[in-house]
Amino acid sequence: MAQLVGKAVVAQGGGPTAVINQTLAGVALEAMKHPQITRLYGAVHGVRGVLNEEFLDLSQETPANLLRVAGAPSSALLSTRDKPDEEYCRKLFRALKAHDVRYFFYIGGNDSSDTVRIVAEQAAKDGYELRAVHLPKTIDNDLEENDHTPGFPSAARFVAQAFMGANLDNRSLPGVYIAVVMGRHAGFLTAAGAAGRTFEDDGPHLVYLPERPFSKDRFLADVDGVMKRLGRCIVAVSEGVADDQHRPIATLLAETVERDAHGNVQLSGSGELGDLLKDLVKKELKISRARADTFGYLQRSFMGVVSDVDQREAREAGERGVRYAVSGEASGSVAIRRVGDYAVDYALVPLSAVAAKTRTMPDAFIAPAANDVTPAFLDYLRPLLGSGFPETARLRAPRVAKLLGP
Amino acid sequence: MAQLVGKAVVAQGGGPTAVINQTLAGVALEAMKHPQITRLYGAVHGVRGVLNEEFLDLSQETPANLLRVAGAPSSALLSTRDKPDEEYCRKLFRALKAHDVRYFFYIGGNDSSDTVRIVAEQAAKDGYELRAVHLPKTIDNDLEENDHTPGFPSAARFVAQAFMGANLDNRSLPGVYIAVVMGRHAGFLTAAGAAGRTFEDDGPHLVYLPERPFSKDRFLADVDGVMKRLGRCIVAVSEGVADDQHRPIATLLAETVERDAHGNVQLSGSGELGDLLKDLVKKELKISRARADTFGYLQRSFMGVVSDVDQREAREAGERGVRYAVSGEASGSVAIRRVGDYAVDYALVPLSAVAAKTRTMPDAFIAPAANDVTPAFLDYLRPLLGSGFPETARLRAPRVAKLLGP
Repeated sequence: MAQLVGKAVVAQGGGPTAVINQTLAGVALEAMKHPQITRLYGAVHGVRGVLNEEFLDLSQETPANLLRVAGAPSSALLSTRDKPDEEYCRKLFRALKAHDVRYFFYIGGNDSSDTVRIVAEQAAKDGYELRAVHLPKTIDNDLEENDHTPGFPSAARFVAQAFMGANLDNRSLPGVYIAVVMGRHAGFLTAAGAAGRTFEDDGPHLVYLPERPFSKDRFLADVDGVMKRLGRCIVAVSEGVADDQHRPIATLLAETVERDAHGNVQLSGSGELGDLLKDLVKKELKISRARADTFGYLQRSFMGVVSDVDQREAREAGERGVRYAVSGEASGSVAIRRVGDYAVDYALVPLSAVAAKTRTMPDAFIAPAANDVTPAFLDYLRPLLGSGFPETARLRAPRVAKLLGP
Repeated sequence: MAQLVGKAVVAQGGGPTAVINQTLAGVALEAMKHPQITRLYGAVHGVRGVLNEEFLDLSQETPANLLRVAGAPSSALLSTRDKPDEEYCRKLFRALKAHDVRYFFYIGGNDSSDTVRIVAEQAAKDGYELRAVHLPKTIDNDLEENDHTPGFPSAARFVAQAFMGANLDNRSLPGVYIAVVMGRHAGFLTAAGAAGRTFEDDGPHLVYLPERPFSKDRFLADVDGVMKRLGRCIVAVSEGVADDQHRPIATLLAETVERDAHGNVQLSGSGELGDLLKDLVKKELKISRARADTFGYLQRSFMGVVSDVDQREAREAGERGVRYAVSGEASGSVAIRRVGDYAVDYALVPLSAVAAKTRTMPDAFIAPAANDVTPAFLDYLRPLLGSGFPETARLRAPRVAKLLGP
């Protein structure tokens, strides 16, 4: 098998995660070991950087600095929301060819994997030998072929720890607390809110996922039921919840609807859905102490809450991507497979199996009443959260007999 | 000096912090060592628990469990927003006397210290010997007599880490990002957002505090200036920002205004202020990518982000409170004093010096332009954030020369 010799380009696309730079470091540190990769360039702002020849020469980075960068959230090479079309791709190739690039690594979600697919097809059509490898990354955990995706475990840990604290807060000052979690079509991250429940009455008591139709009336009845049972209620709701006609609740209620270059409605960066649900609870259930938080950008980029399992898997996904590229012959997408309890391995799968597809929560992870997760989901999630996950405790002191009042 | 022998009651009031149970554990573990405290009761839901004789017998708690509880955020004894009046206090005394309570420890903020003051005065008036000690707690850092208050350092660390991540996020996908931080009258917590800035162009680039009048026009001009300079802009804004006639911006804009039992306007638990400022930026500056987050309850109760300096000071404040009560003769409030760089000591100050007073940011901590903090503030804050504060890093690889484009 003839070795393919040339430069490599690595880029990062889409939203940030806590471990996206682990994958970058994995690619960079591994690429340095293979002589057929003559140089590693980092494209600034994703494919846009390729288009505009905005490259950093990562071969000149020190391993020490790459390891420090690996520990920081959000794309160190900066990112883009651009989605290349045929014309865009022609320009990409002009740049890749001009720089003798033979290896292209793109770290991103399902939109980015579709970009890699287009680039690989364009290369084949142009008769240009290029190994294009997509490396998985998304807090949404919605990539096909993957047991889970780098970035999700750390975001899940943030969300779980947030609900653990919110639960203690709500227990000490009771009322209704609603938190809106990211997840347009897949409810994994919202579902992760349940991972910190310890005692039987711990919240979130209700979990609403985009995989099931959301009904205002059922929501209000659910909240009313929990309030009657516990005197308090914590709700986790996906930003992407939609009614039975697939109309996003947030969109139905937003005065103005924004769309990005992929045609996605902009759901994040606003507290609207939470505020609306909170106002609904106040008005319809006559509950005065109702509060809403939207976890917003914190859940995807918070500095300092990270799963070490996620870190090492993200790193290894980058390393494996380089290995597949230099020793194999095909383009593809690196996918994480669970092979034990708990261990993983990595496969190179066809780009078409991942590109622009969305995986959602399997039915086995969603409670039949559509307002909670199942124990099977918690079993799936727990090993991903990593070591040092915080534990909660309660006072167990006995009550003192009253001397005065009843 | 005759020893005062009897039971002790400890209670927690107001909003949660990450270390409020350290102070509870400090009181409980210390109280067990002093024979004049015959039993330690914990009042459930603050003064309301005293009123209703809802006591837990903390003398029966194991030290092991107290230490585990100490590590969890939010009042383990549960909390209250009640503010006792004279009638309420008569009922409190009836309960305290009936149970032979001679020591009363109340962990809370300036509202809670006012409660302790009323209780102490009522006790004196009734000729009932009672040592009432207020133990400081508030993420707002707004207690007089204190260099800083337990709970603030951990919340400050959360806010700083949140902005560190938001800065990296915003750098990779540029635009305007606005985050609303808690702080009704004191801007300390919002100001803490600046503590994670490392590189010269790191955000938050603008910091708006309630200590200075907020003007929409100046805000828009500031954002416009940063955008022109850096192509991106991160704004930290206190929920309590007010115009030059002291009208809270949030209140001016909120359709409905809620007040709690203390007459405070409800500013938290809603994304309104952030969304409004974001819409203003979009409309007036024609910037399409503007986002807003409201850190909300996460900053006061997040599980797993805590300053170890804060933990040990909160614990010691509880221990010192018990020592002052059993060995001294006066009621009072425990205050933290900075005595070195960095070390602290604790004083017992008159309740009237703390009760219902609000400390705000000194002028030396606020930049003259009223849109940033000063280096003096960062010097003040940094030792409080504790060990293991995350560091950020950037790629330093050189640019590659373009072969095609200009």
